[in-house]
Amino acid sequence: MSQVERIGVSLEKKLLSKFDKLIEEQGYKSRSEAIRDLVRKQLSEKTLEDPKINAVAAVCIVYDHHLTKLMQKLTSLQHSHLLKTISSIHIHLDHHNCMEIIVLKGSVGDINNVADNILSQKGVKLGKLNLIPTQVI
Amino acid sequence: MSQVERIGVSLEKKLLSKFDKLIEEQGYKSRSEAIRDLVRKQLSEKTLEDPKINAVAAVCIVYDHHLTKLMQKLTSLQHSHLLKTISSIHIHLDHHNCMEIIVLKGSVGDINNVADNILSQKGVKLGKLNLIPTQVI
Amino acid sequence: MSQVERIGVSLEKKLLSKFDKLIEEQGYKSRSEAIRDLVRKQLSEKTLEDPKINAVAAVCIVYDHHLTKLMQKLTSLQHSHLLKTISSIHIHLDHHNCMEIIVLKGSVGDINNVADNILSQKGVKLGKLNLIPTQVI
Amino acid sequence: MSQVERIGVSLEKKLLSKFDKLIEEQGYKSRSEAIRDLVRKQLSEKTLEDPKINAVAAVCIVYDHHLTKLMQKLTSLQHSHLLKTISSIHIHLDHHNCMEIIVLKGSVGDINNVADNILSQKGVKLGKLNLIPTQVI
Repeated sequence: MSQVERIGVSLEKKLLSKFDKLIEEQGYKSRSEAIRDLVRKQLSEKTLEDPKINAVAAVCIVYDHHLTKLMQKLTSLQHSHLLKTISSIHIHLDHHNCMEIIVLKGSVGDINNVADNILSQKGVKLGKLNLIPTQVI
Repeated sequence: MSQVERIGVSLEKKLLSKFDKLIEEQGYKSRSEAIRDLVRKQLSEKTLEDPKINAVAAVCIVYDHHLTKLMQKLTSLQHSHLLKTISSIHIHLDHHNCMEIIVLKGSVGDINNVADNILSQKGVKLGKLNLIPTQVI
Repeated sequence: MSQVERIGVSLEKKLLSKFDKLIEEQGYKSRSEAIRDLVRKQLSEKTLEDPKINAVAAVCIVYDHHLTKLMQKLTSLQHSHLLKTISSIHIHLDHHNCMEIIVLKGSVGDINNVADNILSQKGVKLGKLNLIPTQVI
Repeated sequence: MSQVERIGVSLEKKLLSKFDKLIEEQGYKSRSEAIRDLVRKQLSEKTLEDPKINAVAAVCIVYDHHLTKLMQKLTSLQHSHLLKTISSIHIHLDHHNCMEIIVLKGSVGDINNVADNILSQKGVKLGKLNLIPTQVI
């Protein structure tokens, strides 16, 4: 944390006690930390609405590794794009299925296009995209 | 607001100034109000994970009103269920399509079942469900 | 339904049997109806990414009706905007809390702005927004 | 793909042509592939509603790597749990911030608990969780 400011917040007692119970279950050590996380999450969601914002994305896919052409296709997709693929992890699920997490960096708009391109490959069975704005506060 | 407590929250200056900018755009008059809303939203989401919790739901559907059997079916669905249908609004969209918002009250689990039943009717083209826990803090 | 086309779709047997089980539980009478609904949902989500698209929105809020100024404020918000408020339902939750569903029509961008304005009012405790594109297929 | 079945689906012509346009933009080579993906996504979402289902999760977090105790804490969290941490990637974002993707395997309920525990650590600024059911069809 760089420079810190302390603000006062008024909450109904009942609301506060329910919130305290929830964040204790989640493992928070302090209310400030839990509220900071809510504030950052809200800002992050609003930031990502702009397709020109820079972000890092984790594209999680499940695919059938017996389709060998798919693996070549996925690798070439990761290299051919203007978008920078930073890295990827490969996880063995079962005899047929692999999970791969591909980490991409670029504008939200470009990331969405590349993710669509990956998810639409024949053999890619499921896919989900997680976006994090590069400039985290 | 019933009984109110004032707590102190520490935030990085940069985070705070970005948050202030966002909530001003959204129309908030005070930080406390904005933070209270984030806290309530978080509690509400966690509460609704329990299918036994009581909630009020707005089921928004779009359907083709030329399918007259559908309207009878929807009305009977709203009456036959153990679940209490509180009210509904009907909105004219265009020559073919109507929007209907059906307000239901009951446990989250029962509401989801009834909503599935409504959305799966032939002629119901689109549907979305909004849940609010009955016991709002 | 206007003009209908019949297409062929290939699916793994296991995938199909799981899907059949799910849609039976949801109440679907036919696979075609269930698949049409998935297709419409996907198109609707993509359509709503464009802030200039016309939509109908259900803004569901919970508020404390003892704050009489709030009710005036909400009513004036619904009338002052360029955006057309079509109608609203008011639901009694408990001694303190009311739920109100406000139906708005306009561009996705304008709706989001008005919704922010409503949700940020002091006394509005919780709020959720459901968007449906006007031009439903 | 193991054993495949071919089914017929009826869709309105206008709906079909809009869907064809969307999936071409997304990069799909065939309608069957696009519809299979919608079916799998729907089944996956429903499956994950059960906290006892086995899943693989990618927990993406952003944290300040200057808090050295945090890195130890995160590592020990990944080892101490009954839940199996499969692997993790570490990505450098800027002078202060790192992104880490932690891959967990276990029941949906256990994964949510561990994820809460990770996200609530002081210094973890943002976090998102992606769940994939282990038994992908």
